[in-house]
Amino acid sequence: MIGNSGLVITGAVHLDSDKDGSISFIGSTAYLNKWESSKVTAAVIQEKLVQDNLPGDGRAFVVVKNADLAMAKILELFTPDAIIFNEAINRSAVISETAKIGQNAKIGANCYIGNEVQIGANTTIYPNSTILDNAIIGDHTIIKSGTVISERCVIGDSCIIHTNVNIGTDGFGYRPSDDGRSIVKIPHIGNVEIGNHVEIGSGTCIDRGKFDATIIGHGTKIDNLVQIGHNCKIGMSTLIAGCTGISGSVTIGNGVTIAGHVSIKDHINIGDGVTIGGKSGVINDIAAGQTVLGFPAMEVKKTLRKWAVLNRLIKTGNN
Amino acid sequence: MIGNSGLVITGAVHLDSDKDGSISFIGSTAYLNKWESSKVTAAVIQEKLVQDNLPGDGRAFVVVKNADLAMAKILELFTPDAIIFNEAINRSAVISETAKIGQNAKIGANCYIGNEVQIGANTTIYPNSTILDNAIIGDHTIIKSGTVISERCVIGDSCIIHTNVNIGTDGFGYRPSDDGRSIVKIPHIGNVEIGNHVEIGSGTCIDRGKFDATIIGHGTKIDNLVQIGHNCKIGMSTLIAGCTGISGSVTIGNGVTIAGHVSIKDHINIGDGVTIGGKSGVINDIAAGQTVLGFPAMEVKKTLRKWAVLNRLIKTGNN
Amino acid sequence: MIGNSGLVITGAVHLDSDKDGSISFIGSTAYLNKWESSKVTAAVIQEKLVQDNLPGDGRAFVVVKNADLAMAKILELFTPDAIIFNEAINRSAVISETAKIGQNAKIGANCYIGNEVQIGANTTIYPNSTILDNAIIGDHTIIKSGTVISERCVIGDSCIIHTNVNIGTDGFGYRPSDDGRSIVKIPHIGNVEIGNHVEIGSGTCIDRGKFDATIIGHGTKIDNLVQIGHNCKIGMSTLIAGCTGISGSVTIGNGVTIAGHVSIKDHINIGDGVTIGGKSGVINDIAAGQTVLGFPAMEVKKTLRKWAVLNRLIKTGNN
Repeated sequence: MIGNSGLVITGAVHLDSDKDGSISFIGSTAYLNKWESSKVTAAVIQEKLVQDNLPGDGRAFVVVKNADLAMAKILELFTPDAIIFNEAINRSAVISETAKIGQNAKIGANCYIGNEVQIGANTTIYPNSTILDNAIIGDHTIIKSGTVISERCVIGDSCIIHTNVNIGTDGFGYRPSDDGRSIVKIPHIGNVEIGNHVEIGSGTCIDRGKFDATIIGHGTKIDNLVQIGHNCKIGMSTLIAGCTGISGSVTIGNGVTIAGHVSIKDHINIGDGVTIGGKSGVINDIAAGQTVLGFPAMEVKKTLRKWAVLNRLIKTGNN
Repeated sequence: MIGNSGLVITGAVHLDSDKDGSISFIGSTAYLNKWESSKVTAAVIQEKLVQDNLPGDGRAFVVVKNADLAMAKILELFTPDAIIFNEAINRSAVISETAKIGQNAKIGANCYIGNEVQIGANTTIYPNSTILDNAIIGDHTIIKSGTVISERCVIGDSCIIHTNVNIGTDGFGYRPSDDGRSIVKIPHIGNVEIGNHVEIGSGTCIDRGKFDATIIGHGTKIDNLVQIGHNCKIGMSTLIAGCTGISGSVTIGNGVTIAGHVSIKDHINIGDGVTIGGKSGVINDIAAGQTVLGFPAMEVKKTLRKWAVLNRLIKTGNN
Repeated sequence: MIGNSGLVITGAVHLDSDKDGSISFIGSTAYLNKWESSKVTAAVIQEKLVQDNLPGDGRAFVVVKNADLAMAKILELFTPDAIIFNEAINRSAVISETAKIGQNAKIGANCYIGNEVQIGANTTIYPNSTILDNAIIGDHTIIKSGTVISERCVIGDSCIIHTNVNIGTDGFGYRPSDDGRSIVKIPHIGNVEIGNHVEIGSGTCIDRGKFDATIIGHGTKIDNLVQIGHNCKIGMSTLIAGCTGISGSVTIGNGVTIAGHVSIKDHINIGDGVTIGGKSGVINDIAAGQTVLGFPAMEVKKTLRKWAVLNRLIKTGNN
């Protein structure tokens, strides 16, 4: 720590904030340049950026190896309380007599909890959520408002399911009618099984399997407005960013990173540790460890070379 | 049938399942190769794959012309019961006195049914759904939880509208203000009219027309997270896969197949029987029967040739 | 006005409608060609299209400088009543004792209004909406069914928030765990602040900031199924069409037009008055006033030239 060690810090802010008694972070030279004119009194600062800089009169630097990481931990200290449930189980919630509600579970106003549903201990269901028959929700899980967990689906422990999420919609599968003149729905009798420590963003849809389960592995984090088709098997600690669409029967490994607006064709296999760049369209299997980009998605260097070739072609006489 | 005809089958599973007394399907050599080590006792199998193969001790093959189709029909046999409504009309639902509710209709907990709404016979409204004033829902239709049918919209018979669907949002139309300094909303006084046997996936949005109706034809199936703009006219038995966005005033024929993450520009006409490949961007009309791909979408062969040309260019000295 | 000035007009329709006593609009030669066979009795018509044309027996033209604009204003006259709230505050709504509800506010059936929430005067909350603790909603604002305004978020005056919208979901931010073996959620302690006269489409998600606010400026209009990441700052009178995904920490100016299915990388800056064509992928900053297209998005002329070059390459021997 450099500078005034007697400061009382009551919040975390950006450098351009004018809130008194706050701390911010300096993770790059650009941020360092803003420091002098900033009204913020303290900052965590990346070690290599300190050099000869002093925080200035009455201000302080907390010198750290990784400013991003330090700030993430500071935010944990300043996290405000979650919403308050004035009754643990709101009297307006409609709960089947055959549902089992765990100890210290909270159920918000106007929820519906169906027949034979199991809600784990210390789990919180926000107002206006719907949990349909025979669904099972683990312990310490949070289900936010407007979300629907459809019949027979299983959610693990310590998950966060954000607002208006759709778990267990029927897969998009049809067959021609016997007379070949129309399309007939194929029943989807499977379910969705979600591991522990999974987070699922608002509006996201995960379809139920045709016969068995669509699976989301432990620790996987899925952003808003993502579509995951029937029968997908997604590994552990995988990240899937917003607006991505994954067709049916796709298999995705562990530790995969999928950026936003990616599309993945049905029945594709994606190995462990793969990275898929934003807006890519994946139509071939991807081996473990690869980084791909573009449509059709291929090794990132190849796609960047294509982009460069096209830029050159429009500059030459060839147009 | 080949093999043990005395088996009792109680479920349908994938070949890698270990559930006793189940049936699976063998539609390709890859699946056939898994059969010997599989614990499943019976399988429907594509005729041409049988040849010399026998199911093995105590196991059975049901030989069929189309294993996919046969399995779809088997799933119909094993479809579990839908959710159970403990009261036909849940006492927590708020239903306007001027709404007309058909015979044997079921209305779940915490639904809202507005003024002058009509709900058909044998129609089921899942918990936490909202049907606003003057909407009309046909017979034998299912509306799942969290879905909102906005005022004056019309849904046909035998439809399935999945969770958190949005029918009848105002179209995205604005005009400059008279002083040219801001944007003013154009009222959308039309509605949405959905035919019979239509299925609509979770989170999907269908906007109301500016003056008249946005129309979805009989038998059309729409996947999750699809956006359909104001004044679109979509034909019969058309399939639209997930994450597709269709701008305003697009006309789409009958028997069209649109894959996932497709974008269609406003005022485009798409003929009957067209197929649009995944992630395509359609900016020109498409004549009946064509198959298109890419952005800009064009005849699939042309797009594949472009992809091949680019692959060649980055391999040659031209980069 | 040309023709029969004694007509009584009771609705606005398309030229192919057969509703008596209605008015339509003629903004192009294509529409003019439909006029003679149309059953519609009156039309607003673009000045330059009139020339020698007469409306015909008993019919009328209203000649205007801008038929689109005139029609938008006519629609305002024919806008039907909004839904009727039979009780201003429905008795089934669950409203915290510490919430402050403004004069003439309406709250629909089965809503939840959390602790310390403030709802402005003349604001309408449709049935089955959820407003969580400490959120603030301005005056004359409409919040439609299924929408969730999460804790501490702020919505301005005269906004329209359509159905199943998600305001204030946690941003998609994680850090490696201390042992490097899993991913840990970064708390998002900021909120979302939405200006006045903002409209937000169905299913759209706006994430809360990490420390401070995600901001949407006055008069900005956002379509359905749009994703806006944490810490974005979006200016005034900007239009964002459906299915667009905007990553975290993006800054967007005033009067920007973003078409459908656009993707924008994190930390990008987009100047005032920019236009971004449909399905573009923006990976570089865009200076004020530019029009861009494609992936990677660049000056629209350059992208069109690339498309032309590729079309030429597949026609020559080069394939």
